Amino acid sequence: MIPNDFYSPSVHGTYALYELGDLLLEEGETLRSCKLAYRTHGMLNAAKDNAVLVTTWFSGTGKVMEDVYVGAGHALDPAKYFIVIVDQIGSGLSSSPHNTPSPQNMANFPKVRIGDDVVAQHQLLTREFGIKRLALAFGGSMGGQQIYEWAVRYPEMVQRAAVLAATARNTFHDFMFTETLIESVTSDPAWKNGWYARSEDVRDGLSRLAKIFAVMGWSTEFYEKKRWNTLLGMSSERDFINGVMRAYFAPMDANDLLCKAWKWQRGDVSRHTGGDLAAALGRIRAKVYTMPISHDMFFPPRDCEAESRLIPNGELRVIDSIEGHMALNGFDPAYTAQVDAHQRELLAFNA
Amino acid sequence: MIPNDFYSPSVHGTYALYELGDLLLEEGETLRSCKLAYRTHGMLNAAKDNAVLVTTWFSGTGKVMEDVYVGAGHALDPAKYFIVIVDQIGSGLSSSPHNTPSPQNMANFPKVRIGDDVVAQHQLLTREFGIKRLALAFGGSMGGQQIYEWAVRYPEMVQRAAVLAATARNTFHDFMFTETLIESVTSDPAWKNGWYARSEDVRDGLSRLAKIFAVMGWSTEFYEKKRWNTLLGMSSERDFINGVMRAYFAPMDANDLLCKAWKWQRGDVSRHTGGDLAAALGRIRAKVYTMPISHDMFFPPRDCEAESRLIPNGELRVIDSIEGHMALNGFDPAYTAQVDAHQRELLAFNA
Repeated sequence: MIPNDFYSPSVHGTYALYELGDLLLEEGETLRSCKLAYRTHGMLNAAKDNAVLVTTWFSGTGKVMEDVYVGAGHALDPAKYFIVIVDQIGSGLSSSPHNTPSPQNMANFPKVRIGDDVVAQHQLLTREFGIKRLALAFGGSMGGQQIYEWAVRYPEMVQRAAVLAATARNTFHDFMFTETLIESVTSDPAWKNGWYARSEDVRDGLSRLAKIFAVMGWSTEFYEKKRWNTLLGMSSERDFINGVMRAYFAPMDANDLLCKAWKWQRGDVSRHTGGDLAAALGRIRAKVYTMPISHDMFFPPRDCEAESRLIPNGELRVIDSIEGHMALNGFDPAYTAQVDAHQRELLAFNA
Repeated sequence: MIPNDFYSPSVHGTYALYELGDLLLEEGETLRSCKLAYRTHGMLNAAKDNAVLVTTWFSGTGKVMEDVYVGAGHALDPAKYFIVIVDQIGSGLSSSPHNTPSPQNMANFPKVRIGDDVVAQHQLLTREFGIKRLALAFGGSMGGQQIYEWAVRYPEMVQRAAVLAATARNTFHDFMFTETLIESVTSDPAWKNGWYARSEDVRDGLSRLAKIFAVMGWSTEFYEKKRWNTLLGMSSERDFINGVMRAYFAPMDANDLLCKAWKWQRGDVSRHTGGDLAAALGRIRAKVYTMPISHDMFFPPRDCEAESRLIPNGELRVIDSIEGHMALNGFDPAYTAQVDAHQRELLAFNA
């Protein structure tokens, strides 16, 4: 364990920790005393049929989901729904390399898969809250990988699913992209094979990661239209790279990011069906909205569309945004309005 | 100077060296005893009006241009044209960090701009061959940057220009992409600030560069359709990454690549007109075919189209290929056939 003030309520808001106990992982190791950070909004009704699960992505915690997607005026309105936002393992708030004690600390943190997260989340929802069915499961990017995994693994439990900017089976192209992120960090001598003294020591590696993210995370149109200025208020491209991209990743813990990157690379619901993606997606009972972002270079609409066609009750809803993948962070009200509109429609659907 | 057997006629075919003398560079330094590697095909006719200039890109030399774009059956047919293929500075055959003696060797090699190459090429063509007008100037990627520079700098000399997969003014997005390539190399401790003993010492950095190139250089469709197998004969994605991408860059010299990357980042014909791109492109007298590749993530068709509209005699001809930017290497006859067809049409145009 190493201290890192970034992963604290003062930055990420109030959250609770669910003590899961030992979690047997798909790769064979057991994560001891696994903890899931979560936060809830609204009240679970007597029928327990208004529960919504919200998951988290690569670089975010429950905080950004809470800020961007949940609240009065959003589809995920706490006046109607009991919303449980759960941080993924490796988020920095849930069990993560930097906050786990020896002998599973830092570089010795075990390899975690998307399926492990979903099993852990299932335990939280069923045992802590007695939830038997989800009105909606919603997540973006790696959070979306988790939602697909939920819909395939627990088909009877997921009534509706909304997947933003993610695929059910990661493509090799996206795998390679993530590998460049991983190598940008592990190539930093200050990373020391995962045994750095302070998260901030890996600043060069995280800076390189931030720049690769800057190339792939937005779009050429975003830069050409100078949205870094009109949308984000930065004074120049360099100001944007340093003040937004580098600043965004700088406080994060390298091993935590690497834990998630490894998991991201291997998201694949067809592990349930011996590699048969159609068979895996065919198991889904939920009404599913697959919502790629028009300019996303991680999960291009074409890849998402192909998967959507394999889902019995799947519908494709492309979100139009030249912010590309990074639109997820909800900088643009026009983006959020589209997501809310689709989610409202989905929630109104009688499954 | 360090030895590197890769940059030799046994790998890159027969070429001549033009001794340019000292070249005063835009950045203020003088490159002493500058040499340009070139090769010619065909005969210059008595009227000297059948000359074609072919330039080179980031990772290639004249060899790939010769192999893919020149010969009987191609638009650039030596039976009709006198074709001069000139390696850019930094190619490894022309003056480059690895082959230049002290005090301009290795990390002390001066910063070179696209304009410097074009001035040097102009000297070769005019003084060595007495060429006053080019029937065609043709290049792709960084070679295309040079062709735009030619058409703006020497408008009376360029009758026709064909620019493959390049922009006249580099975008910030592409600048950042190139910066990730640069950092993938300079972050390798074996690079030693440019003072490594052997090119192969920088293998980790070049491997990282190769992987970033694998993400941006092809397209998601290329991977999804397994073109690494059907087109390139590799047995798996990993086989492709190691056997094609890593193997491609591994023998190259890191400083040579960095010299070109710096130049690539700063390609900009509007340096002639105080930053006014429309004014710069408005100077062009040549008939210009702007030929982006449909799936190119370095120079997306949208970026190229916007520039084409600013060229008085400009026409946009999109080359359809899911190989993306890497299509340039001519793996696919269907790609080459499109380029040849456009070039034939352009060459038939009476300027």
